[in-house]
Amino acid sequence: MKLYDLQASGNCYKVRLFAALAHIELEVVAVDFLNGEHKKPPLSDLNPLGELPVLQDGPVVLRDSQAILIYLAGEYGGLAWWPAHPQGQAEIAQWLSFAGNEIQHSLCAARLVQKFGAALNKAEALQKSSVVLGLLDKHLEQHDWLAMGRPTIAECAVYPYVVLAPEGGVELGAYPSVLRWVERVAGLAGYQSV
Amino acid sequence: MKLYDLQASGNCYKVRLFAALAHIELEVVAVDFLNGEHKKPPLSDLNPLGELPVLQDGPVVLRDSQAILIYLAGEYGGLAWWPAHPQGQAEIAQWLSFAGNEIQHSLCAARLVQKFGAALNKAEALQKSSVVLGLLDKHLEQHDWLAMGRPTIAECAVYPYVVLAPEGGVELGAYPSVLRWVERVAGLAGYQSV
Repeated sequence: MKLYDLQASGNCYKVRLFAALAHIELEVVAVDFLNGEHKKPPLSDLNPLGELPVLQDGPVVLRDSQAILIYLAGEYGGLAWWPAHPQGQAEIAQWLSFAGNEIQHSLCAARLVQKFGAALNKAEALQKSSVVLGLLDKHLEQHDWLAMGRPTIAECAVYPYVVLAPEGGVELGAYPSVLRWVERVAGLAGYQSV
Repeated sequence: MKLYDLQASGNCYKVRLFAALAHIELEVVAVDFLNGEHKKPPLSDLNPLGELPVLQDGPVVLRDSQAILIYLAGEYGGLAWWPAHPQGQAEIAQWLSFAGNEIQHSLCAARLVQKFGAALNKAEALQKSSVVLGLLDKHLEQHDWLAMGRPTIAECAVYPYVVLAPEGGVELGAYPSVLRWVERVAGLAGYQSV
């Protein structure tokens, strides 16, 4: 099973982190991002959006880190990470959406500007980052884990850009419940740092 | 089962559309959006993000239209709309992410500016809209439905802001496969227009 990967990408780290936690073996294929390998065939045939990560498992080809987490958990990771019942799936899916939208356009965007010089609105990304971290902190004040009272793929979707936030100029010191949760995630068996 | 709803919201329409297609009865509760009812208790207790829609089904409270679609389909809609196997779930989840991120920040954003005067970057939204519609059109050239060769909740997530695109100044004429798919969705039994 191949993961087309960029080491510096938090979205790719979501998948590597989950594979480590759930003991799933991946063949990690480094993509030549700087030369735009992900935007040309054959990779752009696998993902027309021209983004990473992409997972290829025999005939199954998937883009979007959140969708890949669902696949890996459902197929290989066991019900603890992605349950069979709709209420649990939906509770987790709320956080997958939060990762794919709110976090992407705040913490991830700020890091893209600061670390990679992306032409995005940094002030807006920073303002959204404080909203996102405030919401997370409030949730984690009351809950040890994002959903279902236990670690799930929600952690793998949300953790990467939170722990990478300082690379975008966003400090976590004002969010004590987030910091405690970051430590809890890092303490999980099999954890792999970025 | 209550849906806290805003008639003009494409995100709320995603849920209403699916409920109509799958014959799920919802009590639609109109929220006084102009006066910010969704940003104050009790609604902000149900969804700290201060957004609509919100679904309340007994003790189950869910935000995020994509998560709500998963719940409704899994709990009440049957396996045709959201299968039990991970490969199908992930195939659909790719489009749920596309709806919650790419479409939200293109077609939906353009409409928020044009119809509601939102302080967003319209030029950027329009540029992203043509990318999004180009990707959709290319996919729908080869596929009648977004995922799994049949209508699923992916249709309910993607269709609303596509059909509402002209309200954001985005015309669909250049995307013939998208137009044919829009007609296929509108021809589904139980279909309800916005």
